[in-house]
Amino acid sequence: MNKVDKKVNAAILIIGNEILSGRTQDVNVIFLSRWLNGEGVKVEEVRIIPDIENIIVKNINELRKKFNYVFTTGGIGPTHDDITSQSVAKAFNVGYGYNKKAYKILKNYYKVGEFNVGRKKMAKMPENSQLILNPTSGAPGFIIENVFCLPGVPSILQSMINNLKNKISGGKKILSKTINLRTVESEIATSLAMVQKDCLDVEIGSYPFFKGGKIGVAIVLRSTDNKKMVLSFKKIISFVKAKKIKLIK
Amino acid sequence: MNKVDKKVNAAILIIGNEILSGRTQDVNVIFLSRWLNGEGVKVEEVRIIPDIENIIVKNINELRKKFNYVFTTGGIGPTHDDITSQSVAKAFNVGYGYNKKAYKILKNYYKVGEFNVGRKKMAKMPENSQLILNPTSGAPGFIIENVFCLPGVPSILQSMINNLKNKISGGKKILSKTINLRTVESEIATSLAMVQKDCLDVEIGSYPFFKGGKIGVAIVLRSTDNKKMVLSFKKIISFVKAKKIKLIK
Repeated sequence: MNKVDKKVNAAILIIGNEILSGRTQDVNVIFLSRWLNGEGVKVEEVRIIPDIENIIVKNINELRKKFNYVFTTGGIGPTHDDITSQSVAKAFNVGYGYNKKAYKILKNYYKVGEFNVGRKKMAKMPENSQLILNPTSGAPGFIIENVFCLPGVPSILQSMINNLKNKISGGKKILSKTINLRTVESEIATSLAMVQKDCLDVEIGSYPFFKGGKIGVAIVLRSTDNKKMVLSFKKIISFVKAKKIKLIK
Repeated sequence: MNKVDKKVNAAILIIGNEILSGRTQDVNVIFLSRWLNGEGVKVEEVRIIPDIENIIVKNINELRKKFNYVFTTGGIGPTHDDITSQSVAKAFNVGYGYNKKAYKILKNYYKVGEFNVGRKKMAKMPENSQLILNPTSGAPGFIIENVFCLPGVPSILQSMINNLKNKISGGKKILSKTINLRTVESEIATSLAMVQKDCLDVEIGSYPFFKGGKIGVAIVLRSTDNKKMVLSFKKIISFVKAKKIKLIK
């Protein structure tokens, strides 16, 4: 199968009690999803789990078999609750210890005498991991087979993404088109369902919104096939005109 | 077991292509988690999945067996991509059709002649569902056994929460205490790990932050046992003082 036809999917695994407890608003899912979409990788599942070793191991093993790629965030820092690296090593049943390259990077990053136990821990990874370089705070992420481990702090994660570009191989790009209408969902539900039946290769989503005190509906078309997307677009515009619904720019 | 000792947990299942594609930032997880915490229910897993029937069925059945409560958001509106209700019925292997009470509520909500097919769809639910009333936009959510189905639009979901208060039975409340320090994680990692080893009933999290151009670390203590939490708090304050680290109010 060549790249033009290939479908590539991914799962995101957010590891962190702080998200589950409601202490912290996750913003890594939206960032990673948008980036992966642009690379032709469709995110098909997200899980948020606590910092508990056996739960991390179980989820890594489930997801890495089910999806082309798995991206984890969180748990690769210096403290006792950062247990992603050792858990991923366990999931792959490989050793966990100092990665020579990571050790060297971190040793150079810190001043003499400041490369302490906590900082050294960040050089510990599953055996034979490939590094994901970190231009913000030194400590690298890592890749083992199809699992990519990134930090939880959004600004650091985002700064590392450019170093991943040549490390994933996406499929056909997912195209998207949005039609904003001044209407309510129930007014267009039947017509929209008919278009969806006619255009099975286009994912048609309908999302109500409230903006500037006015309600509306965003219809989102997503497909890897531009021709089919344009066809569904035309069919929607056609019933929108017939119903005299106002398009919003 | 009385309420004082009982541990009650929950999973949240976010159903919606718009979250997975990165189109929409989810804010329902943090809202539901905070609310559930306050009710003595610990959120232990979140999953975000697409609007695909067999995937919804599989996840509902996995989560409802594993957790005391499951809260779903999304997919109970009037359009073709809203398939949560029928999927939940399938998961429970019960009929799917008009709920008389919901039908009556919606019929009264809309003007004569405006109760169309799309709107009628919102009265369809798994057999014997209990309603969750919706003070914002009429269409109710529903409860079947331990599964609670809520809409995806955050403002509507939030307005329905008060109608759930007497429908869940929480366990011992999870208490939380935060200590903000002007330091970096690696400076306190070893000491913090020792406190965690001594205080296994307290979940100790460490989260770096950047605020007003300055870095710091938030240490978050969580436990259902106040005495044990106070003990761990004292142990942390003791090493913080010894290390001459500044506390931030």
